[in-house]
Amino acid sequence: MSAETDRPSPRTPDHAIDPLFLERWSPRAFTGEAVPEADLKRMFEAARWSPSSYNSQPWRFLYALRDTPDWSVFLDLLVPGNRKWAVDTGALVFLVSNSRMKVGDDLKPSASHSLDAGAASLAFALQANRLGWHVHGMGGFDRERAVPTLNVPEHHRIEAAYAVGRAVPWAELTEEQRAKEQPNARRPITDFVHAGGFPKDA
Amino acid sequence: MSAETDRPSPRTPDHAIDPLFLERWSPRAFTGEAVPEADLKRMFEAARWSPSSYNSQPWRFLYALRDTPDWSVFLDLLVPGNRKWAVDTGALVFLVSNSRMKVGDDLKPSASHSLDAGAASLAFALQANRLGWHVHGMGGFDRERAVPTLNVPEHHRIEAAYAVGRAVPWAELTEEQRAKEQPNARRPITDFVHAGGFPKDA
Repeated sequence: MSAETDRPSPRTPDHAIDPLFLERWSPRAFTGEAVPEADLKRMFEAARWSPSSYNSQPWRFLYALRDTPDWSVFLDLLVPGNRKWAVDTGALVFLVSNSRMKVGDDLKPSASHSLDAGAASLAFALQANRLGWHVHGMGGFDRERAVPTLNVPEHHRIEAAYAVGRAVPWAELTEEQRAKEQPNARRPITDFVHAGGFPKDA
Repeated sequence: MSAETDRPSPRTPDHAIDPLFLERWSPRAFTGEAVPEADLKRMFEAARWSPSSYNSQPWRFLYALRDTPDWSVFLDLLVPGNRKWAVDTGALVFLVSNSRMKVGDDLKPSASHSLDAGAASLAFALQANRLGWHVHGMGGFDRERAVPTLNVPEHHRIEAAYAVGRAVPWAELTEEQRAKEQPNARRPITDFVHAGGFPKDA
């Protein structure tokens, strides 16, 4: 399990929820431990059962395991700022969505391929936590170069990259690291939840 | 808890995962029971802690509770096919995303507002299950009419609608309903997961 009792967290829910949602967060200090392929498959399996429009399942996952030839290719697609810490993770993943879906015999544009991929991405991250791993999502990668490098077909969108690894335990972090390596906070739901529609002065 | 032991399910995981991912599914037969606002807030609270680019939290949730004046307004935005079954749910929700995010002092286009909203939507649905409710997502609503009706601001995208309610227990379904009221299946992960990139013949 991923819950650490000694790591400080500013996360206090205003309404009672399953702790799994609070326990998911995005570290930057990783141990360099390899992620076994079998564990990664369990994360993809969780993503598999996500909801999607017409059950179109538009999510595609591309991965590279640490200590394989693909690793350096994937790592090299990240912007330098992400490469710096992602080098200590154990698997790199690109999430791609198919922007078209089959309706009957036709291929039609999907209005929710990114949304559906996002649902799959959370299932992936939550299952990772269940196995003691942490996932850190990234928008910082070379989008243009990633398309040919990953052989991304037409009508597909690269949604995000994810690094999966073992978070450095709180006890082993330097003081400088500790300032950053804590779960971040959120706006209260009153800021983004409205009855009946957006307020007239929004 | 939502798990029903008597409802048949074609869902068999190929890799071991937390059962919560299999237990989430989208019924169409609902009991008409009202969803207490306190429960709905716990679903929004789960969504609150989702990951997003730069922690921009682009998700917005608009809701109408059954037996309130907003209910018929929301219901009326759905296409007739969805209205037919959603009328028996207990809350209707529109998920909207802000397509711009603050980076420093600037508002910049977000490349992941839909993806991030999708993550929040799954947290919402999973927490609903934890409370014994079920969520059914819909793309079928009047997008053009929804913008003024829900007072959706510029630079915001309506991502999806969700109906939340109590699923009719298996024992109370007619034979005809039973044919439809079962969780649906998925492609195996080998269909959407690839090491190193898309296969050359994809």
